[in-house]
Amino acid sequence: MEKLAQLYEGKAKKVYKTSEPGMVWIEYKDDATAFNGEKKGQIAGKGMLNNEISAIFLSLLKEKGVDNHFIKKISSREQIVRQVDIIPIEVVVRNIAAGSLAKRLGWEEGTELPQAIVEFYYKNDELGDPFINNDHVAILGLATESELADIHKQALRINEILKEYLMTRNLILVDFKLEFGQTPEGQIILADEISPDTCRFWDAHTKEKLDKDRFRRDLGNVEEAYQEILRRLGGKVDV
Amino acid sequence: MEKLAQLYEGKAKKVYKTSEPGMVWIEYKDDATAFNGEKKGQIAGKGMLNNEISAIFLSLLKEKGVDNHFIKKISSREQIVRQVDIIPIEVVVRNIAAGSLAKRLGWEEGTELPQAIVEFYYKNDELGDPFINNDHVAILGLATESELADIHKQALRINEILKEYLMTRNLILVDFKLEFGQTPEGQIILADEISPDTCRFWDAHTKEKLDKDRFRRDLGNVEEAYQEILRRLGGKVDV
Repeated sequence: MEKLAQLYEGKAKKVYKTSEPGMVWIEYKDDATAFNGEKKGQIAGKGMLNNEISAIFLSLLKEKGVDNHFIKKISSREQIVRQVDIIPIEVVVRNIAAGSLAKRLGWEEGTELPQAIVEFYYKNDELGDPFINNDHVAILGLATESELADIHKQALRINEILKEYLMTRNLILVDFKLEFGQTPEGQIILADEISPDTCRFWDAHTKEKLDKDRFRRDLGNVEEAYQEILRRLGGKVDV
Repeated sequence: MEKLAQLYEGKAKKVYKTSEPGMVWIEYKDDATAFNGEKKGQIAGKGMLNNEISAIFLSLLKEKGVDNHFIKKISSREQIVRQVDIIPIEVVVRNIAAGSLAKRLGWEEGTELPQAIVEFYYKNDELGDPFINNDHVAILGLATESELADIHKQALRINEILKEYLMTRNLILVDFKLEFGQTPEGQIILADEISPDTCRFWDAHTKEKLDKDRFRRDLGNVEEAYQEILRRLGGKVDV
């Protein structure tokens, strides 16, 4: 397979066309952004760590029957995935109150939710990824009602699998962001990445934050947190 | 029926117990607030105008089969309504982009929506009435899934009735806020008020704003706008 022209450069990844129809080449970057791009920086080695971490999660989900775009990791910071049309909805699943939910509902960060919840955000940098509801999805034409119900259901299933798996690694899955894409056949599958960039992971005992909140909130030891996540997932960290 | 102890004082109304079980006495005030109480003022005669306007809308809805709390108007600024447990959700229905929706989606104010939409806000002054979705309603325990579906459906039905009626009065129903309450029998019915305080009304031809936006945005002729609404609904304005 050959790497061809760049299709897209996002905040954390570059996407290239390949010689193989239906497959794209993803390169993970070390760039880090927060607060809709207002805060910018680099996290040394992040590209390699997230490439590996995301590959582990997406493989696990595939094993558990959740089809997704992941095909294979091909180098330390590159992987091949299925080409899908990304649905411009950021799907957030939450188990514990943190970040914007803690603020929205006035709940103390760390409060366990009575049940997992799903939130949709309109993926639009210019608007700052606004929080939207199902009716907004409809008038924006982002997805049909049944597609959205499918996404909601998949998101909760993914949460169940990841939460349970992470608990065996002594990690609490506080919340996370997913993106879905549509295959040429019309199937809606999980895409994008699952990593400390897109999840809140807390140590199950100390509640230490092991994710991008260390960057967002200037808590220090950012690289070390990402490395620790990979280590707990059984990956090898080269430092 | 006797007016007994005050039960509650809101931003625009006072509510009193009555000697009649299941009925409360409502007094409309001239006080006006906006932006979650940050802006305060008075609109001369507003209490009387909204008492009359709301009585007209709630009677119309009852005639059209939408049960609600309205029983009867008893004086220029007072009415008797059924006592219900107010569900702390502000239910907003929108036909045209304006206010927070225009901002959220980046749509120009005045853009017609492809279909009417419903939004839920958590009625909580301390939090600034945050926008929430169905999953938030669930974890806050504000309503069950089927109750919420009932509210969504009623809200759209109310919109159809009001929109059509207002069009015959040369008025565009841009958007409006509803509140629902639960009767002792467990029925969920429309409560609160429907007035220029809670709706955006535009003149169908000139698009002139005839509602609380005149107060919010310091457009002048606030009282005159409220009077004009009552006049178009066939009410008598004493000035």
